[in-house]
Amino acid sequence: MQHLGVALIGHSFMGAVHSQAWRTVGHVYDLPARVAMTVLAGRRADAAAQAAGRLGWQDSTDDWKSVLRRDDVHIVDICTPGDSHADIAVAALEAGKHVLCEKPLANTVAEAQAMADAARRARAHGIRAMAGFTYRRVPALALARQLIADGRLGDIRHVRAAYLQDWLYDPGAPFSWRLERKRAGAGALGDIGSHIIDLSQYLLDDTIDGVSAQTATFVQDRPLTDSPGRTGRVTVDDAAVFTARFTGGTLATYEATRYATGRKNALRIEVNGSLGSLAFDFESMNELSFHDAAQDPGNTAGFRRILATEPGHPYLEGWWPPGHGLGYEHAFTHQALDLLTAISDGTDPAPGFEEGLRVQRVIAAVEASAADESRYTRIPR
Amino acid sequence: MQHLGVALIGHSFMGAVHSQAWRTVGHVYDLPARVAMTVLAGRRADAAAQAAGRLGWQDSTDDWKSVLRRDDVHIVDICTPGDSHADIAVAALEAGKHVLCEKPLANTVAEAQAMADAARRARAHGIRAMAGFTYRRVPALALARQLIADGRLGDIRHVRAAYLQDWLYDPGAPFSWRLERKRAGAGALGDIGSHIIDLSQYLLDDTIDGVSAQTATFVQDRPLTDSPGRTGRVTVDDAAVFTARFTGGTLATYEATRYATGRKNALRIEVNGSLGSLAFDFESMNELSFHDAAQDPGNTAGFRRILATEPGHPYLEGWWPPGHGLGYEHAFTHQALDLLTAISDGTDPAPGFEEGLRVQRVIAAVEASAADESRYTRIPR
Amino acid sequence: MQHLGVALIGHSFMGAVHSQAWRTVGHVYDLPARVAMTVLAGRRADAAAQAAGRLGWQDSTDDWKSVLRRDDVHIVDICTPGDSHADIAVAALEAGKHVLCEKPLANTVAEAQAMADAARRARAHGIRAMAGFTYRRVPALALARQLIADGRLGDIRHVRAAYLQDWLYDPGAPFSWRLERKRAGAGALGDIGSHIIDLSQYLLDDTIDGVSAQTATFVQDRPLTDSPGRTGRVTVDDAAVFTARFTGGTLATYEATRYATGRKNALRIEVNGSLGSLAFDFESMNELSFHDAAQDPGNTAGFRRILATEPGHPYLEGWWPPGHGLGYEHAFTHQALDLLTAISDGTDPAPGFEEGLRVQRVIAAVEASAADESRYTRIPR
Amino acid sequence: MQHLGVALIGHSFMGAVHSQAWRTVGHVYDLPARVAMTVLAGRRADAAAQAAGRLGWQDSTDDWKSVLRRDDVHIVDICTPGDSHADIAVAALEAGKHVLCEKPLANTVAEAQAMADAARRARAHGIRAMAGFTYRRVPALALARQLIADGRLGDIRHVRAAYLQDWLYDPGAPFSWRLERKRAGAGALGDIGSHIIDLSQYLLDDTIDGVSAQTATFVQDRPLTDSPGRTGRVTVDDAAVFTARFTGGTLATYEATRYATGRKNALRIEVNGSLGSLAFDFESMNELSFHDAAQDPGNTAGFRRILATEPGHPYLEGWWPPGHGLGYEHAFTHQALDLLTAISDGTDPAPGFEEGLRVQRVIAAVEASAADESRYTRIPR
Repeated sequence: MQHLGVALIGHSFMGAVHSQAWRTVGHVYDLPARVAMTVLAGRRADAAAQAAGRLGWQDSTDDWKSVLRRDDVHIVDICTPGDSHADIAVAALEAGKHVLCEKPLANTVAEAQAMADAARRARAHGIRAMAGFTYRRVPALALARQLIADGRLGDIRHVRAAYLQDWLYDPGAPFSWRLERKRAGAGALGDIGSHIIDLSQYLLDDTIDGVSAQTATFVQDRPLTDSPGRTGRVTVDDAAVFTARFTGGTLATYEATRYATGRKNALRIEVNGSLGSLAFDFESMNELSFHDAAQDPGNTAGFRRILATEPGHPYLEGWWPPGHGLGYEHAFTHQALDLLTAISDGTDPAPGFEEGLRVQRVIAAVEASAADESRYTRIPR
Repeated sequence: MQHLGVALIGHSFMGAVHSQAWRTVGHVYDLPARVAMTVLAGRRADAAAQAAGRLGWQDSTDDWKSVLRRDDVHIVDICTPGDSHADIAVAALEAGKHVLCEKPLANTVAEAQAMADAARRARAHGIRAMAGFTYRRVPALALARQLIADGRLGDIRHVRAAYLQDWLYDPGAPFSWRLERKRAGAGALGDIGSHIIDLSQYLLDDTIDGVSAQTATFVQDRPLTDSPGRTGRVTVDDAAVFTARFTGGTLATYEATRYATGRKNALRIEVNGSLGSLAFDFESMNELSFHDAAQDPGNTAGFRRILATEPGHPYLEGWWPPGHGLGYEHAFTHQALDLLTAISDGTDPAPGFEEGLRVQRVIAAVEASAADESRYTRIPR
Repeated sequence: MQHLGVALIGHSFMGAVHSQAWRTVGHVYDLPARVAMTVLAGRRADAAAQAAGRLGWQDSTDDWKSVLRRDDVHIVDICTPGDSHADIAVAALEAGKHVLCEKPLANTVAEAQAMADAARRARAHGIRAMAGFTYRRVPALALARQLIADGRLGDIRHVRAAYLQDWLYDPGAPFSWRLERKRAGAGALGDIGSHIIDLSQYLLDDTIDGVSAQTATFVQDRPLTDSPGRTGRVTVDDAAVFTARFTGGTLATYEATRYATGRKNALRIEVNGSLGSLAFDFESMNELSFHDAAQDPGNTAGFRRILATEPGHPYLEGWWPPGHGLGYEHAFTHQALDLLTAISDGTDPAPGFEEGLRVQRVIAAVEASAADESRYTRIPR
Repeated sequence: MQHLGVALIGHSFMGAVHSQAWRTVGHVYDLPARVAMTVLAGRRADAAAQAAGRLGWQDSTDDWKSVLRRDDVHIVDICTPGDSHADIAVAALEAGKHVLCEKPLANTVAEAQAMADAARRARAHGIRAMAGFTYRRVPALALARQLIADGRLGDIRHVRAAYLQDWLYDPGAPFSWRLERKRAGAGALGDIGSHIIDLSQYLLDDTIDGVSAQTATFVQDRPLTDSPGRTGRVTVDDAAVFTARFTGGTLATYEATRYATGRKNALRIEVNGSLGSLAFDFESMNELSFHDAAQDPGNTAGFRRILATEPGHPYLEGWWPPGHGLGYEHAFTHQALDLLTAISDGTDPAPGFEEGLRVQRVIAAVEASAADESRYTRIPR
């Protein structure tokens, strides 16, 4: 049985969630490989050491490049802000390490393109690259994909997707790196909009042909927590709305915002087809609503509330009995499982960097459309 | 006490609902006037006579012009398809009759403009004109308007509005006049999109500055029920999606469709502001969700499910005890009450034809944008 | 076509709702008879006259006995407090009038027995008697009955029924006749508990074999609105809870209370069977939740939210398109329809007085059990 | 910093969940002690060894008594069926080990009494005993307790509690040890009814005075999976329903069943008080419904849907951002945290064995009442 050592780069929120996944995956599923949590890299040695201790990593460093030289590291898991993704990922792939990279893949299409190119080259050597669009692995959404792939919805006419948070609704909420274009690439559009772009393309197994968009920055300046009385300038979008048309003809609406007061993490997606419909809201993440017009044409038709916690539902075989719901973190455990399985099988994990690049191109098209009177903007292939 | 005779023009679905309202309003509210259901006009004498009997009208005719000459008719209630609205409404106003006209006000901006002009001229003579955007009078939505007007939501950042039906999801569903541009003016956009356009402008007390739109016709030909084997060509939109910006800066998304399989009459609207949020879905029409960030900043914050059936809620004084919900038709009874009150008080009812014209201009802008690569299209003032 | 004159006895809340039903039924359904709202009887002549004017009755009186002597009255509709039901109903039946009597049928089993006896005698002369358990005629609940009768739930194992209101949760809420044993017979148990007793027996088409009960009166004295500073003594239950066993083996729980703070009219009932389940809450009265274990055994099983507004659903043929929901009052219109149909067909309407008596016996058994250490108390046949 | 070694006894479903908690707790919270997963004990050596490997335990044994003799074991975590709880727990306490014991505490009151006695004796030596009523540690329910303790609900009038599962609704579902009185003690009543008994007493900080109960066994014989064609006799209840009165006057209903077709793990509890109400359903475990009649007396009153995922909510400081919900297993991590904290602080964890005994007495009273014509049966103090 293969032995795989993991290096984690970055140890804030995302690093903590990934750590929980790496700690857990081998205790829940029968893995095709042995996994070690080898080393954690951060920007500062002391903070990295402390995080490694707390999060369960054997070693730590303040030099991410050093981990690429270690023979006991086989997988590099990138949880840093977007501006460093390309550097780290390309170097890791070139060093022969499998890579898992958080979304969005990069801050620009050029960076994402470089990463996808590196992934393609690495694939020739059996090296795998995966983009962290984790919501695909929420059981209810994985089930949604199955139902659509099985034709249960027929021809898809509509997608309405929204990712609603509210942590900026108060003009007094502090500045952060996520509000800086240089660090974050984009605002709500890149951070959470990227999820619904990927998710909708994944569910439909179709690609967005073009978009027509508007963006807004509602609050221009926000207090700097470390410099009382001073403010930081917001250089990204607070919210983005756009309509889209899929290659297959589906008409779609999208919204990503951090100003939906009272909505905490409402990733919502609805799909309507000629034979049925689906609806999902992450605030009730164990539920999928399904209307089956083919099966229930009569007087008992209605949206079913499927609790996606049955043994036959995706990823559930490792967990608890029906009705004993999962939480946010579990999708990351499923992601780790799928990556390890792909590496072991010698297949490409999904989504790969090519799919991450595709999302990046949609983000770029949204920004271009918003800058050009919302004109319909095609996504390059 | 004033005595007001009503003439109803048109007696299909809308005519039946309006009749129920006229029959009921005087038994539920203390009216400022006596109302008589004087005459019903239809295209065919026999059908009109039968409808009058069933719906409770004293007289009937197949000549709508004749009712304008009757001294015992003071209000003309227009429930015909959109292509006849302008002719009837202008003639009625010129004949000195108050007019209630179903939405959308007309099939074109030019017609709506002519109607608004006629209404302006008639106003000088104390004659009133009202557009039938009835959803304003659903108690939960009237309450929503109050809360926003009272500043409970603060600055409004987002509107997301959708009107979802599914009666066309099956390609085998039959052709109807609603699918013909000449009769209906527009498709889902005009029929149900007009409601969410009006409702959003009403709730925010703000106007849409511009739109960026896409429309689609998913099924081009549908079977004619009266000509087996033959089909009718669909010449209107099946669905319309658009983003919009309000004059005050609010960013909005809209969707109107008849292909949302499983959604029967889901008029949904959500509003997010700097102090709170609202959410409504007509499929649960007695409920309003309200998040009050100003009052509940702590660990008990959450969306409240307000049952809008309390005595203090709008229009409720005439009805049943708390929790004994109302239905679709009741908003029409409230509309009748408001029109009668306006006539009696000598004030203008809301929405007037000017507001109906404003909706028509948004519809036209949506169509123009969709025809011009979704380019952002301003609404003329 | 038969001509039927109706006399209404009582004109407070229930009288108003019944009036709306009588005014409406002939305009929505094709009736088998012509109906006239002939006369309204109240205790005071002036109030009765005023109510008759407002509610649409042709005549009024302060002498209910006089209406029994009128040839133009064929149906007596009793909307008075429970203490007068027996007198009026027996007299009306003996006078050859069809009777519709509000629930609970009476204040005591003896009275209810007398009424059922009178109804039996009258039946021999073609005279009909109906008890006003109106919730049976909410479309979603009528659909529930159909599904159970069709075997869609299999063997019924559980009923959990609750009727929750909150108008007494505040100790300062005023005294009313509903809190007086002499007038009201019982408290929450009789007023709203009677509904869930009847409804559960109706849905299952089975009878309660016995009950084990507890009751409570949380607030003993309440302010008299017409005598400031003085209080009235509450002599009925504020709440009743009981478990029950049906003849067929179903195990059930019941709760009726006016102290469920925040619940306005939450008549809830859930039924679990060997093939499926149903759930209903009147606060969302147009919805029925249905889990079909026989049809959906796989990974798409779940409770369906059926919007009971389709043309094929019970009573819907007269109303609006799908999704255009009904309200509280509509069940009374359906009740009027069913009574008129039964009279016209010469059949017995359901529920008859015998079924009303059966409910009264359950109420008496609940009280007896509560007074005897909750001992299991059988319902006499 | 104290070092605490844990021994787990039993490694099926509960053992797996507890293992996940022990593996995780130190990586999420700042623990007051170091924890080691020292040894796992099972009935068969090979199965225990395999489970230890998979679940992350350092050692394994088929002799639970041997773990009591180990100096590196300080905590014994009992996850076996109820018939062995007393033996193991008493021996462990007498051996000076802290004990965490799954619920129900025992199969009989006598056993539970012996365990509570042993816990009392051990306490004198600083040894702690905790009963595993884990639902207390679901954040939404811990918040519910806080709100009630803070007086936000006023005087409590009603509790309605139900724990609904459906894994036996099909008569063909196989026999298991949970259906055998000797092994399981009771059926649904002990397995899941015990949770709602404990939870209600915990939330109200009050004790049940007495109960009036009925139980049923719907299916007498079920197929034995290991003996095709043969069946096992069900000797426990399939369902139990009872009403109860709390010492403080609250009136309550309870139901525990494994026949609620379509309900997977619906632990539901509602509480109504003179100032407000709460409602919870474990199928949406991150939500608490709260109606605050004191704060919202006006036209915006309604049940708030609190997402119990804010940093200020109980146990949330260690987890993810708002809206990133938790799952079933997390309450076990919280339980481990609370036990470790109590041991470190030298205080008694809650619930202790005395509280577990109290639940056992209610279970016994329910069975006694059901066997005695549902007569109201007081719980001994």
